[in-house]
This record gives sequence, structure tokens and C-alpha cells, in this order.
Amino acid sequence: MPALRVAVAQVPNRVGDLRGNTERIASAMEWAEHEAAADVLVLPELALTGYGLGDLVLHREFVDDATAALDELARRSGRLTTVVGTVTRVPPRRSWDTRDRDVAISAALLCGGEVRGTYHKVLLPTYDLFDEARNFAAGTVGDQLWRIGDVIAGVAICEDLWSADGPPEAQSAAGARILLVPNASPFHRGKAAGRLANTRAVARRNGVPVVYVNFVGGQDELAFDGGSIVVDADGRLLHRGREFAEDRFWVDVPVAPPRPPQGPITNVHTRPVLREEVVACGTPREPLSDVAAVWHAIVTALGDYVRRNGFEGVALGLSGGIDSAVTAALAAEAVGADHVLALAMPAPETAEEETIEGKRLAENLGIVLQVVHVDAPSSGLVLSGEETAPESRYERERRYARARAALLGDIVEERRYLVLATGNKSEISIGEASLFGDLAGGYAPLKDCPKTLVYDLARFRNERGAVFPRRLLDRLTSTQRFAPTELPSYATLDDIVQRYVEYGQGLADIVAAGHSVELVEGLLRRIDDAELVRRYAPPGVKVTSRAFSQDRRMPISNEWRAHRGVSSLQAGDPELPSSPEG
Amino acid sequence: MPALRVAVAQVPNRVGDLRGNTERIASAMEWAEHEAAADVLVLPELALTGYGLGDLVLHREFVDDATAALDELARRSGRLTTVVGTVTRVPPRRSWDTRDRDVAISAALLCGGEVRGTYHKVLLPTYDLFDEARNFAAGTVGDQLWRIGDVIAGVAICEDLWSADGPPEAQSAAGARILLVPNASPFHRGKAAGRLANTRAVARRNGVPVVYVNFVGGQDELAFDGGSIVVDADGRLLHRGREFAEDRFWVDVPVAPPRPPQGPITNVHTRPVLREEVVACGTPREPLSDVAAVWHAIVTALGDYVRRNGFEGVALGLSGGIDSAVTAALAAEAVGADHVLALAMPAPETAEEETIEGKRLAENLGIVLQVVHVDAPSSGLVLSGEETAPESRYERERRYARARAALLGDIVEERRYLVLATGNKSEISIGEASLFGDLAGGYAPLKDCPKTLVYDLARFRNERGAVFPRRLLDRLTSTQRFAPTELPSYATLDDIVQRYVEYGQGLADIVAAGHSVELVEGLLRRIDDAELVRRYAPPGVKVTSRAFSQDRRMPISNEWRAHRGVSSLQAGDPELPSSPEG
Repeated sequence: MPALRVAVAQVPNRVGDLRGNTERIASAMEWAEHEAAADVLVLPELALTGYGLGDLVLHREFVDDATAALDELARRSGRLTTVVGTVTRVPPRRSWDTRDRDVAISAALLCGGEVRGTYHKVLLPTYDLFDEARNFAAGTVGDQLWRIGDVIAGVAICEDLWSADGPPEAQSAAGARILLVPNASPFHRGKAAGRLANTRAVARRNGVPVVYVNFVGGQDELAFDGGSIVVDADGRLLHRGREFAEDRFWVDVPVAPPRPPQGPITNVHTRPVLREEVVACGTPREPLSDVAAVWHAIVTALGDYVRRNGFEGVALGLSGGIDSAVTAALAAEAVGADHVLALAMPAPETAEEETIEGKRLAENLGIVLQVVHVDAPSSGLVLSGEETAPESRYERERRYARARAALLGDIVEERRYLVLATGNKSEISIGEASLFGDLAGGYAPLKDCPKTLVYDLARFRNERGAVFPRRLLDRLTSTQRFAPTELPSYATLDDIVQRYVEYGQGLADIVAAGHSVELVEGLLRRIDDAELVRRYAPPGVKVTSRAFSQDRRMPISNEWRAHRGVSSLQAGDPELPSSPEG
Repeated sequence: MPALRVAVAQVPNRVGDLRGNTERIASAMEWAEHEAAADVLVLPELALTGYGLGDLVLHREFVDDATAALDELARRSGRLTTVVGTVTRVPPRRSWDTRDRDVAISAALLCGGEVRGTYHKVLLPTYDLFDEARNFAAGTVGDQLWRIGDVIAGVAICEDLWSADGPPEAQSAAGARILLVPNASPFHRGKAAGRLANTRAVARRNGVPVVYVNFVGGQDELAFDGGSIVVDADGRLLHRGREFAEDRFWVDVPVAPPRPPQGPITNVHTRPVLREEVVACGTPREPLSDVAAVWHAIVTALGDYVRRNGFEGVALGLSGGIDSAVTAALAAEAVGADHVLALAMPAPETAEEETIEGKRLAENLGIVLQVVHVDAPSSGLVLSGEETAPESRYERERRYARARAALLGDIVEERRYLVLATGNKSEISIGEASLFGDLAGGYAPLKDCPKTLVYDLARFRNERGAVFPRRLLDRLTSTQRFAPTELPSYATLDDIVQRYVEYGQGLADIVAAGHSVELVEGLLRRIDDAELVRRYAPPGVKVTSRAFSQDRRMPISNEWRAHRGVSSLQAGDPELPSSPEG
């Protein structure tokens, strides 16, 4: 079967970095043309502008700059055809509301010093974390074809690929012999397997090979995991790009047999002639395991958040619990151990052993640990004219938590360090996380990790070299319970949270899955009531199919409760004591 | 001209409060049928569910509950036709992406114990604060007509009214003699005048009277201002409902001459016969002034945020500046003076005079003031193993700010009081607001108020009874400058912020408006760089046409800057010293 040599550049997602992206793309064009001797180079969706632009595209100057950058790339193009994602101006169009939109998500085809044509994304995802209908005009020509030498190709963008009756189907029916698909597909657990299954289904359904190209890198709460894939017309995987790392590769892709073209065709180039002698692919690399992928997603998102926002490093409090220990290990990998400052802040009643364990962990990770004694957190504040009641243990704990948060802030401010919050998804879900304790900080790496997954991450890290002290590991096997309130094991809690938050199941569904009605009612109430606290949580990286904040946008003021029939429970209190994990 | 008696119930927007909303609507139905003797009752958009549902509609149980509530209202309906907004299930539909959507924003027509028909909103706003394309299916029958006795009526919903070629045009062309329009239109400055102008234009263009019904009340960052309006077929205003208050009224609306109907018609009722003897309207009430409307918007949103989230009151620090003084006055009106706790937290070096002024302000407002001496904010924290450098004035100020924030949190926690942040839009725009100072808290009433508007609010409040001490008033006329950095007057700053943030103007436009290029470049850099800090700011009420957060969704990690050509400026620091207003 004759083949087209397709090069792929899995570049990092850098929103707004028009100069840097232009240079990265130009470098990939050089490589693809002269080193890989490729016929086509494919880059991710919005490779030139970055994905996750939000309302930046409403700045007309930004679109002007992107247009100028595209022209610059076109000038630098040679014989190679490059498919590069960017934003382009289109005639104003009204669709689902009264606003005209005049910017499209596009794939421009560059060749011979020119922009030879532009495909506009037809399907604009507007669900979960996606907001594309907000600012973009939808493309209207789903069956557009591109002549690249002997081959008629189709170009579709990301969401276009996920309809069973979308542009890839139209393009294949009209005569496309290969589909080139730029994507910006953020990571969540199981996503890579879903992408492969869908891409294989598209290929088989239409009888054409598919080249699926994705970003890598962190963008605020998202990690892009790369893992670009090439499948042949039978749906067989030919190549898998690296995950969570920049990558370049090329594949001689056998194209589908020629069919008489029936859609609009743009001539991109009269070359190349199809290759009859092709280089065979080796066995594709294995995908990362579930937990390894989560680990790398957090490392990627955290590291880029720190670097791209100009922080010099990160700081966090080591409480002696598993959350802060795993956060420290992730941070050491994300920004380098010498850019992590850990603080142990024992109160006078804290067991000496905990501080010793913290020191051992810091040594194992190679990070700096400072011990700060928080010995009289209220002594600086004199309340005049009021009797001072004896402090409860809870009040005292709260004061310590606040003093620790303030101290962290003070100590790191002149260094321009980002403070990490250590709260996990299980506790954030039900309002057990404290705004002044494990949610205090500028980024929460474990925000979307259920507690059971935090343990999995600890195990995964220790398999690569034991860093966590014995006490933490021992606790992995015990049944975890929260101290201050009666709650089930983390395994049970996480299952209920996943069903309600990720899968959108209702009370009846969750009870039908085998949980007691009282337990489920009580937990759903707590999840609903914690919406207020979650509004104040810092950002954190999405690792599940539905994270809080961008993926699940709930009103704060909201009188409806999924469990409103439950009269035996009292009104929830979103300011509950924090868990022992701190 | 024969008339239809149209009753309007301007009910509060209570998201999720299906029971409360059902009772409020049923009560309005009783009143409209038996006291007003009306032919039709019109309620706001999503009156039954509340507007601003977010992903609550993805809970199928919520849609089930709303459906049951609508059935309950239908059972309670009599001869009167009621047009009530709610969500309804529709056949699954794909539009702009690959997701099926099966819930529509609807207006149900209730009469004689039944749901006689349902109109589905056609245009789904997906810009600024609106996200309707995210979760809703669009209606497809824009020319639907409804027979209410002798009158053929059209029903359209909110955005439907704002196209020059939308459902109202189709309905009028098809024979509608009156348009009934439920809305959920949140407040911003100038919005009421825009609504009136558009409604008059629709009426005149189509030769039909229009009944425009809006919500009142607060929903998180939004205030709904009511101000429902009725205009006749010539575009004359017949009646204006109260602003920022619940209201019920009825108007005998002269209907347009009959035309042979050409669209699909649903018979809602064979009654009423058109009235020939009509009650004339008086002169419509005057609209609120610009500043009065802003005042009431903040009072409305803040008060509802406190009450609906179960807080018992609010607390704030009185710094001696105008921001905290105006915030205190707004709070006293929003939740009642006896639910406001003000804290003056002087450091040893604070002038005695400031504390005296604070006491006077608290007396004038009738709120409780507690004086707390913050005399040694760092004494509780002992950093072991490090030399303690002498503290700079800035470091000391920062420590005080943190101690004050922690103290506020401590003191109010057991009372379940909401802490108010006092930062204003001018300072938040350019990163002069401090996360541990004037942005510390759970709600920021002045978040969207430019500093010049804060002064206007102070003046407005003093006209209704002088509460602010002389020093604050005196400062109103002086040219305000920030202490730590060289910045222009607030009037100049606010003009530039408004052009960039609200109007989306670029550097060239703003310079063309008469500002120096150096000044504009420097300020745009600061506005862009402050995106990181704004991510951590608490919610606050929208009062301008473009507030931060919901209306203007910018990436945090973003290498593009509107002013990137300016090489003379150093990289911005989002942790700048807070302004003297604290």
C-alpha cells in the first residue's frame, strides 16, 4: 500500500506565547522537512496560540498578532505541507444567540511560502471544561478536502472526530484517503484509552488511516498528556507518541485506496508522489499505567503553573499526614527538590516523632525542611473589652492552622514561592477540608485526587525508590476513618463521591449500587453544602472525568438539595473541623 | 382599542427553591385571578427553578422535581392563563457539539388545571456571564402562537427579544397581537435604559405591545433589578415595575389589530373576551438614578448572599479609608445594622484620630464596633535556626494585614458571620489589592466598583443622612493618588480600566482617547499581570457591563500581553503593597 510520510510535533501548550510557539513550530517544520523528509507535518489544535484562550480572543489585538505569526510561519514554509492550529478571522456569523462571532478555531495548511487554505472546526464542545461556543464561530464546510500531491486528505479538529456523523465521515465519503486531526485533549483518568478506541472506530468506520496529534504541558487546572497516535485504515495502532513529554516522530502511513473526490478540494501542493517503499513501524510503546499517568499529570500541571506564573519555587507545610507527604514528593519532581521548601510547624503538644519523620521524608526527597515552633498563636492579638473564655481544643487547632498559613505566606513571600494546599478530593467533596488549613495556598495538587488515589500515588512513588516513612505506609492498609465525624471508609466514600460527582448518578442509583440510604443521603447533603467552601478553594489539576470548578459549575446560593427529603439530618455546617491529615 | 388585562408578578430569583417558588407563584396566580381579575399572568424566565442553575440541570432528579412542581402549579390553575418559566425535558438534540441536550428553557402556559402548552427558548445567550448553550437544547419553533380568548399572543424569552430577526418578529408576522416576554436580566449600569430602548424598538418594529417581566434578588455575583416594563404598540411606556423590590401589578394592555394567523396556534383558553372598557395607566414611575441603582444592586446581592448561605451576619475591618466605610454602610442596609460587626484593629503606630473616626462612623450606622489592638503580630511565631533580620515597614504592614485577617476569621467563625473584603475594582484591576488585606474575606461588595464610583456611593449615602466623617468627605474632592507607586488620578485610571476591561479597547484605541502611550502601556501590563491575584479573589456583585470572573474569563498562565512591546518596564509583581485604603 503506498504511503504518505506524516511527521508529528507534540509541542507544549503555551497559551498566548505567540513568539515562543512560532519558534517551536518553525523548528519542527525544519526538522520535518530536512531531517524527517516528511510530506506532511501535523501539529496540535491551536498550536500557534495555545489552547484554553478564554476571552483572550475577544482582544482584537491578540487575533491580529496571531494572524501576523501565522503569516510569518507561512513565509518560512518550504516544500513540506504543515497543518498548524490557530485562530483566524471569518465573516461574522450568528448562531445560537444574538452575538456575531468572527473568530474560528482553524487548521491552516502552509506550503511554499503561503497559507494555501484553512479548515474551520465545525463542532465546538461546550460542556465539562469546554466553552468553545462562547467565543468561536463554527465552521460550515465539513467535507472540505485537501490535495497534497497524490493524496486527497481530510483535516478535522478534535471534537469533529467524536461524532459518528461529523466531518471525518463527510470527508471520507467525499474521497479523503487519510485524516489529519489536530487536538487539544486534556488528561483525565481513562482518557487515553477512550481516545484510542474512538480513533480506531473512526478509522475502521471510514476505511481511512487517522493521525491524532495532541499537546503536552500544563495550563492552569489542566494537564495535556500528549500520547499522539497514528492508526491505519483497519484501526491498528501504528505509533504512540510519548506521554507527558514533548515528542517528534514520523510514520509512513499507508493511505486508503483512491476514490473519485466529491467534496470541495483545495490544492495545497502538487508534490509529493506517494512512497511505495515505506519504513515499517516498530511495536508501539506501552501506555502509562493509570496511577503513573495521574502522577505525571500532577507533576506537569504543577510545574508549569509555577514556571509560567513566575514563581521561584513552592512551599508547603508537612503535617505528618499522607496528603502533605505525597504533595511534597510531587512538588520535588515538578520543580526540582532544591526549589521546594517544607515547613514543619509543630505545636508544643505535637509528638516529637512526627517532626523526626518529617525530617526523614525531607531528606529522602532532598528538599529543605525548616522547623518552626508555633507555640503561642494567639499571643499577638489582644481583644480589649471582652472576657477571654478558655480555648477549646478545636479553637486552638484552628488558631494553629491559621498561624501556620500566615507563617507560610510570610516566609515565602519575599522568595516568590507558591504555597501548596494539601487537601484531597474526598475531603473537599464533603466539606472536611479547611480554608485556613489544607485549602490554604495558591495551588492544590491533590484537589481532584480521591483519598484512595492519594494512597495509590504514595505506593507508586515508593516503588520507584522508597521515600515515605514506615508509619505512612503502614496506614495504607488500615481502614481509614475520619476522626471528628462518623464517616465510612475512604473506599466507600470515594465510590459515592465518584458516582454523584463524576457520573451524575442520583440518590436512587447510588443506593441501588449497594450503599445504605442513610449513608448516601447524608453524604449527598454534605457534598451539596460544601459548594460554598469550594468557591474559595485554590486551583488544582484535573485528573478525573469531572473535577470541581471548571467541569462542574454549580451555583453557590441554591436551595435545592438532592437529599432534601431527609428530615432527620440537621442543616450542614460548611466550616467543619479539618481532618487529622491537615 | 380593546385590551387584555395582563398581570405581572416580579418574584425573587431563588435558584433551586422549588417549594418556595411554587408557593410564591401560586400566590401570584391567586392574586391575579381573584384580586386583579386579570386575563393573563406573566412571570420571569425560569421563575419556578430560579435563573443561574449552572450544572444543576444535569441532575436528572432536579429536572424531575421541577416537572412535578410545574404539574402541581397546573393543577392549581383556574380560568386565568399563567405564563411561567421553568425547565422542561425535550427530545434529545445535537447542535454545536457532540452532546445530546434534552432540557429546554421554557415558558409553560397553565390554564384550567392543565399545562396547555410550552414554548422553548430559541436563542441561548453564551457570552459575558451567560452559559446557556452549555446545558440547554434550543427551541426550534420561533413562530408559535397562543390563543388566549380573543387574542392571539406570542411568547418569547429574554434573549429571543434581542435579535432584530428573532421569534418576536416571526410571531408578530404570523399574527400575534401582543408579546409576553419572561426575562432573567441581571443588573449592570445602564442596563435598564437599554432594556427599555430595545423593548420599545421591538414594539414599534412589529406593531405589537410588549410585556417584559424581570426577576428581583441576588444570586451569587448577580443582582436582578426587576423594573419590569409594559410598552404599547407605539413603543410608549405604560408601566414600570419597582426596581430592586418584589412587585405585582396589572395593566390593561391595548392589543394590536387582528391579523389572520399564519403560524402554529395552540388554544390555551376560549376566554376571555377582550375588554372594551379599560383602566388607564397613570404616569410610570421614574427609574432610579445610576448611582442609586448601583447602591441597591450591592445591597440586594450582598443581603441575599448572606441570608441564602446561612450566615448570621457580616464582619469587616474598618481601616479608616473610604472603601471600608462604604462597605460598612452597604452592609448595614443589606443585613441590618445589628448583624454587622466592625473591627478597628489599630497597630501601635496608628493615629488615635482614626479609631475615633471609626467609632463615629459605627455610631452613625448603628453597628457594633470592637477595637482590637494588634500590637505584636509576629510574637507567636518562633523561627528556629535562622537569623531574624530587622523587619521593614512593608513586612510589618503585611504581618499586620495577615494578623487582622486571621483575627477577623477567628472572631466571626463561631458566630457564622461572613467576612467582607473591601477591595474596589480600580485596585483589583491593577493588582494593588492584597489577598491578605483588602481581598481577604468571603464576599467583596465593591469588587466591581471603580474607585470613582465608590466616592459617588459615599456621596449618595450621605445625601440620605450624613454618616461618613468629614475627613472622608473632604478627600472626595482631592486628587487621589496611590502612595507606593506612581499612578494617575482615579478618574484617569478608571477611564483606562473601563476602556480596556469593559469596552475591550486596545492600546491604540485608548491612546487615541487622549491618554499617554507610556501610561496606557504600563497600566495594561499591570491589568494583565494581576490575573493571577484575581483568581484568588472572593465573589462580589457585578455592577458594570463587564465584571471580572464570570464576564471576563481569562487564562491565568498566559504569555501574551497587550503591551508586550514595552521593554522599558520590568516584569510585574502581582504581590504589590496594598493601597493606603487597606
